[in-house]
Amino acid sequence: MSERDFGWSLHAQLATDTISIGDLPLSRVLVINDANYPWLLLVPRRPGVAEVLDLDEVEQAQLMTELTRVARALRAQTDCDKLNVAALGNVVPQLHVHVIARFRSDAAWPRPVWGLVPARPYEPAQLETFIAGLHRRIWLD
Amino acid sequence: MSERDFGWSLHAQLATDTISIGDLPLSRVLVINDANYPWLLLVPRRPGVAEVLDLDEVEQAQLMTELTRVARALRAQTDCDKLNVAALGNVVPQLHVHVIARFRSDAAWPRPVWGLVPARPYEPAQLETFIAGLHRRIWLD
Repeated sequence: MSERDFGWSLHAQLATDTISIGDLPLSRVLVINDANYPWLLLVPRRPGVAEVLDLDEVEQAQLMTELTRVARALRAQTDCDKLNVAALGNVVPQLHVHVIARFRSDAAWPRPVWGLVPARPYEPAQLETFIAGLHRRIWLD
Repeated sequence: MSERDFGWSLHAQLATDTISIGDLPLSRVLVINDANYPWLLLVPRRPGVAEVLDLDEVEQAQLMTELTRVARALRAQTDCDKLNVAALGNVVPQLHVHVIARFRSDAAWPRPVWGLVPARPYEPAQLETFIAGLHRRIWLD
């Protein structure tokens, strides 16, 4: 955390639904606890930010850099058929960017994942393996 | 169109569903012909690109610049409650980024828009006004 993070904290709903796997310079990287899809979130650690437009231009560029880094790692780890990337925020207002690995065989394909299938929590060993691989590929500490 | 666009053409499904409002340096800007939501697409004019990861780093940065420019214009024009931004591509593989103005009163709120309500084509005069305003705000030709 740096001084520009001052006043930021993770939204309670995101904290409930996810496991943190570490911080990039701008964003916290989270895993959604839903084994239906390998599903990450990037949350810029800036208070009061709801839209990508609320970030300044340097932060927007950094978000793109972090997004591609995380997306590349997720694709390499899962060998998925498609990536889905989205910033919606209609329910949880704190800016969070979804990065989801999709498979033609997954529970929602080809539809978007939101609201279709109840979340299925990971088995602890499965989650541990997933997070360890991402840690290494994203070059988190 | 520049020489780097060589070999690119708009995917037939996107051509059917949209009206082009002009080109930014990287992306074609399209309006989805669905009056349920003010809904734009950005399509980078690069052949064979399915993921943001398939663009090079300069193009990725340019996409972010164009995305924020278009999103800012759309928000200013519609006075929406929220922007939704997404690159999904499970059905149409050509990379296209959705930029959607959402209202608490709209047909899908707070859910994502995809697949919920049949598209409702614009009245010609309504579409013309919408496009003229965007043209001006995005500084298209």
